[in-house]
Amino acid sequence: MREQFEVRNHDGMGRLGRLEVPRADQTVETPALLPVVNPNVLTIEPRRLREEFGAEILITNSYIIRNTDRVRERALEEGLHELLGFDGAIMTDSGSFQLAEYGDIDVTTEEILEFQRAIGSDIGTPVDIPTPPDVDRETAVSDLAETKDALAEAETVDTGEMLVNAPVQGSTYPDLREEAGSHAAATDLDVFPVGAVVPMMNGYRYADMVEAVLGAKRGLGPAAPVHLFGAGHPMMLALAVACGCDLFDSAAYALMARDGRYLTVSGTEQLEELRHFPCSCPVCAEHTPADVRGAPDDETERLLAEHNLHVTFEEMRRIKQAIASGNLMELVERRARGHPRMLDGYRTLLDHAEQVEAHDPVSKGSFFYLSRESARRPEVARYHDRIERLPVPDSLLLTQSKAPSDHDFDEAWRVWPPFGPAPAALSETYPLTATVPERADPDLQRAAAAGVARLVAANPEADVTLAHDDWDERALAAVPDAVTLENLAELHR
Amino acid sequence: MREQFEVRNHDGMGRLGRLEVPRADQTVETPALLPVVNPNVLTIEPRRLREEFGAEILITNSYIIRNTDRVRERALEEGLHELLGFDGAIMTDSGSFQLAEYGDIDVTTEEILEFQRAIGSDIGTPVDIPTPPDVDRETAVSDLAETKDALAEAETVDTGEMLVNAPVQGSTYPDLREEAGSHAAATDLDVFPVGAVVPMMNGYRYADMVEAVLGAKRGLGPAAPVHLFGAGHPMMLALAVACGCDLFDSAAYALMARDGRYLTVSGTEQLEELRHFPCSCPVCAEHTPADVRGAPDDETERLLAEHNLHVTFEEMRRIKQAIASGNLMELVERRARGHPRMLDGYRTLLDHAEQVEAHDPVSKGSFFYLSRESARRPEVARYHDRIERLPVPDSLLLTQSKAPSDHDFDEAWRVWPPFGPAPAALSETYPLTATVPERADPDLQRAAAAGVARLVAANPEADVTLAHDDWDERALAAVPDAVTLENLAELHR
Repeated sequence: MREQFEVRNHDGMGRLGRLEVPRADQTVETPALLPVVNPNVLTIEPRRLREEFGAEILITNSYIIRNTDRVRERALEEGLHELLGFDGAIMTDSGSFQLAEYGDIDVTTEEILEFQRAIGSDIGTPVDIPTPPDVDRETAVSDLAETKDALAEAETVDTGEMLVNAPVQGSTYPDLREEAGSHAAATDLDVFPVGAVVPMMNGYRYADMVEAVLGAKRGLGPAAPVHLFGAGHPMMLALAVACGCDLFDSAAYALMARDGRYLTVSGTEQLEELRHFPCSCPVCAEHTPADVRGAPDDETERLLAEHNLHVTFEEMRRIKQAIASGNLMELVERRARGHPRMLDGYRTLLDHAEQVEAHDPVSKGSFFYLSRESARRPEVARYHDRIERLPVPDSLLLTQSKAPSDHDFDEAWRVWPPFGPAPAALSETYPLTATVPERADPDLQRAAAAGVARLVAANPEADVTLAHDDWDERALAAVPDAVTLENLAELHR
Repeated sequence: MREQFEVRNHDGMGRLGRLEVPRADQTVETPALLPVVNPNVLTIEPRRLREEFGAEILITNSYIIRNTDRVRERALEEGLHELLGFDGAIMTDSGSFQLAEYGDIDVTTEEILEFQRAIGSDIGTPVDIPTPPDVDRETAVSDLAETKDALAEAETVDTGEMLVNAPVQGSTYPDLREEAGSHAAATDLDVFPVGAVVPMMNGYRYADMVEAVLGAKRGLGPAAPVHLFGAGHPMMLALAVACGCDLFDSAAYALMARDGRYLTVSGTEQLEELRHFPCSCPVCAEHTPADVRGAPDDETERLLAEHNLHVTFEEMRRIKQAIASGNLMELVERRARGHPRMLDGYRTLLDHAEQVEAHDPVSKGSFFYLSRESARRPEVARYHDRIERLPVPDSLLLTQSKAPSDHDFDEAWRVWPPFGPAPAALSETYPLTATVPERADPDLQRAAAAGVARLVAANPEADVTLAHDDWDERALAAVPDAVTLENLAELHR
């Protein structure tokens, strides 16, 4: 374990944790949202970020501070916390973003880390290379080599109590992300941002984002605190937490507000086009869209920024509660219906059910079957694996109805869609306690049929009869030929 | 059209409308939520309901007022508006609920309507028979006959400017709901509550609720303002509005608060079990769950009731905005993932795509494909019908990629999953402008294949080639044998 980070609860790869920030002498609850504060434009006073929004940590840009004479002098004299008026933890970025945007910056990792330490940053960042998506593999590899050099340089700098970020790059190559993650985890640096995902998110490429994060996570391992750099739109937070990210930063709240854009958990709206606010945050409870449009420009921008930040922190609280309740995947299911590309992202996460399953608690509060995607959740895969290890008698009745008291089989087991057959002793245990639709659902039936097939494959000598409730032909096609079928609906006619 | 009710925007069967309430000299925007006010227990002062929550109308129970001496005298002397301190519109219930609960009440329709008029109600209610679900058909029929008698009696009472409800009963028999709806619409009464759905909602029987409402709607027709009596949980409002309901009333906000329950758009939480509030309403922005638990009991109840009401009005604004934006079905898709039985309800609504389609605007802002259910939306059914009417040349290439500039066919059309083939002139029109997932999706492909099949069925003489993007075998199975297949993925290999 990395000593500054402690994971307290898991749900899939999502977790509730605590990050100790020694220089600030504070502990940050994760998942955490870091509002991005532009030292030159305080859209919302940092003091209010803490008091009214509950921000425990924020992020600002040390490169901008270093290159702005007036601010640099104050930061060096008073320190960042005094400069910004914020007594929580402060992370600083290094100028890597500017490097990616403008192609060149005038500072080295050593210089910027020393500057970050000098102005009192609590978590500093080296100058890594944020490789954009879709570059050719050679570029991704050579950029990654430069990032590794930056991490090596960072390890040599005396940073005192300041924690140091070790960014994980690799563009759209999951294997490079994994390699970069392994390399970063082997340094003595502290926090692990997955970098250069902003272009993916701007392009709604959530499937690529999931692949990049899961690649990085395979390399980083479960002990590393992971920051999804530049990610703060409320619509993607649940998916990213479910991929194992712990820290997020939002510049979106302020940048979007400047353009008249209004964030929601299912996308971005234009203030111009809203007749009603789909929110009850303090801004939206007290104003109509017409009120906000009619305010002076800077007031409109501030109100929008406040709403944007409220809805983002609200989603973060919802995510924390979901992990505590063990229903993060249900939240991800809901968010996957915000946009077709979010569904792509969720389906990509389900492609990696095995990776997720390794971290998932064996028992949780509930399992809701909410879509055909639910049949691909890690809990279903795990139960199908478990079926193979169940002791099976010579002759076995599997039935969807209550097991009959009188039968000629050695045992009678219930079948629990989407999981499959289970002996009576398991039937009150998670996940068989799932809540499923009452209407017939071919996907549910097919998943249960796959469970039956696993049982038969592991016990080819057993004599198995399946009494099903009028299953769809696609589900029946997944039941092995050796199984005797009885249709309960026909029996009852 | 019924003169007091005007529909201004449609989205599916959902609508934005205006209900004129002449006795209150006010117009209520619909869909509207009527907070239930118990005249003996004002959990939240009615004045605040209007000022802080935006309630334009509330509902209270005239039977309770009539049977509580102290309150009755004040109501008769001062009038309801003065008694409650509310200057919006006020609807009154009749005691039918008490009849259903306790089996007997001591008042007739004539008496209670005259009393409601006397205390200054703006919308009164006769004594109908709220038949519970699952009764035998004879009981449902004989109860309905009594309800029809109550409506006939109500028509004879001199109610002045007071509007009068005409409840629609019929238990779980959609055809009786339809008959009851036709009968009610033929009276000269004004507002049409679909009654006795509370037991369905308490049992999460959203599929039955949808059948009951759609049955009633078939009888009532589009001009009737429809009230879903007793329905006010935020999780089901979007589905109910999509079924064509205009008015809702919430006692849940206060009753749930009394039991320590906290409402959300995806279900009900226990205050005891919350660590974080998944909300940013004024209550949740200023308090933690521990704060609210630690307050004196009546303060805890009031804070919970305020949250419950905020989240309910928030959802109502979200629904209104969705209708204005033309994406109500996308909101229903999201809400269908709140609970497996909500998914049952949504799938039941899709069973009636033809009924919904008759009311849906031909063009809307966007169509998001968010699940396999999206392929059953009314827009897909409508486009498939349209395909049959398209003029088709003798030889036709249907292709998922951009149509080649050089080919030997008379015409080349793009195929747009989930809709199917379209000539170039249509390709920029709704719903072909849909946003769909980028990952391969067999359900999307299968819906497009159904569109191809409709085209071929209507034009059996045409020579059709389909160039598809590596479709799943289940999708290809839906393409008629007469169609020549080309796999674009193989061509490009």
